[in-house]
Amino acid sequence: MPEFLKVKTAEEVLALMESFAPLDEETVPLEEAAGRVVSRTVTAPSDVPHFRRAVMDGYAVRARDTFGASESLPALLQVAGEVFMGKPAGMAVGPGQAVVVPTGGAVPEGADAVVMVEYTQEAGDRTIEVTRPVAPGDNILEKGDDIARESPLFPTGWPLRSQDVGVLAAVGLHRVPVYRLPRVAILSTGDEIVAPETNPVPIGKIRDINTFVLAAQVREAGGIPGMRRVVADDIEILAAACRKALTDHDVVLLSGGSSVGVRDYTVQVLERLDGAELLVHGVAIRPGKPTILARVGSKIIWGLPGQPASAMIVFTAFVRPSLLRLQGADPARVPKTHTCRAVLRRHMPSVHGRADYLRVRLQRHESTVWADPVFGASAMISTLSQADGYVIVPEHVEGYEAGTEVTVHLFGLRDLTA
Amino acid sequence: MPEFLKVKTAEEVLALMESFAPLDEETVPLEEAAGRVVSRTVTAPSDVPHFRRAVMDGYAVRARDTFGASESLPALLQVAGEVFMGKPAGMAVGPGQAVVVPTGGAVPEGADAVVMVEYTQEAGDRTIEVTRPVAPGDNILEKGDDIARESPLFPTGWPLRSQDVGVLAAVGLHRVPVYRLPRVAILSTGDEIVAPETNPVPIGKIRDINTFVLAAQVREAGGIPGMRRVVADDIEILAAACRKALTDHDVVLLSGGSSVGVRDYTVQVLERLDGAELLVHGVAIRPGKPTILARVGSKIIWGLPGQPASAMIVFTAFVRPSLLRLQGADPARVPKTHTCRAVLRRHMPSVHGRADYLRVRLQRHESTVWADPVFGASAMISTLSQADGYVIVPEHVEGYEAGTEVTVHLFGLRDLTA
Repeated sequence: MPEFLKVKTAEEVLALMESFAPLDEETVPLEEAAGRVVSRTVTAPSDVPHFRRAVMDGYAVRARDTFGASESLPALLQVAGEVFMGKPAGMAVGPGQAVVVPTGGAVPEGADAVVMVEYTQEAGDRTIEVTRPVAPGDNILEKGDDIARESPLFPTGWPLRSQDVGVLAAVGLHRVPVYRLPRVAILSTGDEIVAPETNPVPIGKIRDINTFVLAAQVREAGGIPGMRRVVADDIEILAAACRKALTDHDVVLLSGGSSVGVRDYTVQVLERLDGAELLVHGVAIRPGKPTILARVGSKIIWGLPGQPASAMIVFTAFVRPSLLRLQGADPARVPKTHTCRAVLRRHMPSVHGRADYLRVRLQRHESTVWADPVFGASAMISTLSQADGYVIVPEHVEGYEAGTEVTVHLFGLRDLTA
Repeated sequence: MPEFLKVKTAEEVLALMESFAPLDEETVPLEEAAGRVVSRTVTAPSDVPHFRRAVMDGYAVRARDTFGASESLPALLQVAGEVFMGKPAGMAVGPGQAVVVPTGGAVPEGADAVVMVEYTQEAGDRTIEVTRPVAPGDNILEKGDDIARESPLFPTGWPLRSQDVGVLAAVGLHRVPVYRLPRVAILSTGDEIVAPETNPVPIGKIRDINTFVLAAQVREAGGIPGMRRVVADDIEILAAACRKALTDHDVVLLSGGSSVGVRDYTVQVLERLDGAELLVHGVAIRPGKPTILARVGSKIIWGLPGQPASAMIVFTAFVRPSLLRLQGADPARVPKTHTCRAVLRRHMPSVHGRADYLRVRLQRHESTVWADPVFGASAMISTLSQADGYVIVPEHVEGYEAGTEVTVHLFGLRDLTA
């Protein structure tokens, strides 16, 4: 296929994500399960409760012994004993008998209901009066009533939340099968780039920004940042660094310097990698046009723009969804990007004929979330921290007027959404 | 103050958070800075850029040499050399001269503007024609134009996002002062509770759920789960466990069993701790009535309900905001709880006279997020994973009709919001 046919729309790039298989399976202890995605249907290995449990404080009784009981004609029952919390009942309830049970206590054999303590009164000499009848099953949770053994708990692709970990604990699943997390190498290329601790920075050089921002974004998307390196603008050195990264990472993020020609540069690097297949060679959005997506076997290489603001946008729009996909998350359960609605405070101009991804800053005032466009070149570092996310102005729309309600794609989960 | 005066409304409990001081300061490397809160105003130690930088590919020139240039009468300049990316200019631009510069390259001495390559053409013999005039400063970023040395970058209380880490990298701050993260001990009490790996579970016992759910919630709120223990229902043992936890944790979460009287039980434990001050003894919400808040010096003890669903709600409503407060986050920057708007799919009944915190499950269908009430006793474990968050029905409202738009307080950042 000629390279120019590989310029894609944003929708086409997102559709390509479906072709990535989730990573392999591993088993993690319950303490580490939150945030992970279940890799096979999880079923309950045991009943909850696994014994007949009282759901009220009161007396375990035979329901028939209370039939017809009322305030004026209470049923008289003999208290045969008491069940203690956390202990087996250790006795049975016979006809005309009652046994004291706490909420959550084991219901003794023979009993088929629990009378709430509110509907009883002591009548002396280990005798109680029951002033209301109970039906069989009242105030009792039977074995498996809450969760039945063998019942499905979570389907494949389910991202486990804090509350789901509680359900796993309840049924005794202290280890759980999940998809492995993607390990991500982050390479920043550019002869002009030096490490942030370099001081003073020689004239002509600038400090590396992208490996830090991208590593933080990778972590927030559930990935594990691994190798992080600044590599000189030398195709052979860069290809060698990519080869090394591919040995023990699932994804390689390559972000170019601010120089031109980065796109072709990345393509030349790909040509030097055995089995690399170019999937996307440019995306019809701005910024983000030079974005590259390639596959090497089951591994993924992304080429991102060098300007930090542009790299962040491309990460949020495409790399984050791809990382969620590798984690096996069911797309119906995980939003492709994290969004919120906001009202534009100012006019947002856009050029007809391309999809513009324009950065905004969010501010809540009473019940309205306002979005202010962040102006200034994407090369300006100071604008980087002014934006909370971006608004997409589609190809055939010439900007939005002030007051328009828009969808904001948030850079991070920690940004203002509530 | 008599104990009964310490029953508070939800608003009163949240207002008490203001009296907690943020934890002390520590310094973290840039790699660990995302998600942390800045503990003092951060100012730029250096200029960005720290040298005059070209923002376009072209020629560095003396602007006056191009005055009056046009397509028909171009200015002729002699190319005196080339600046390479990442290198000092190493030359000066004299009258009638031009020097090749790349985007991001250093602008040589003598030059005061950059002519875009589009407005030049080669005229042979190291000569170019300039077809448009430039003004002094055109296409140049002066030293400090992006970020000036000494300018404030982030105020105290600012939670650092991925993009903010980029700004810190750019100015060479590879270590940053932040508030320490709260270490949280989680104690689950109840004679009936055993560890999840216990198999089979004796009759009368149930597996521990709360320490797992609360640990996951603590981690998501930025805290560090530390000691996690199931403690028998024995006031002396529990008091000893609390004392031990207070030595190296900032917060202790105590969740009672499902038995009654837990609230007074926790109070008896507090009476055995030197310097414990009871701040809240019951909250006028349901579930969550038995919630307790106490202070021991600068440390905090929360008593939570034993039912897992109730403990989750109280954590989300009160404990999470308190953990954010200890991390020093400016309340204006961090939502008290993470919320979203949704439309009720069914009628949500509520009892007049108390604030009901009712669990809902969220489901997105096209552009609408629907909220379905989760019915069933909070003792049911199976309902735990059905809910994504809760809706508050205030004291004097008797439920909401189907179709009402409501605010949903989300249990976690990972729940459906987009």
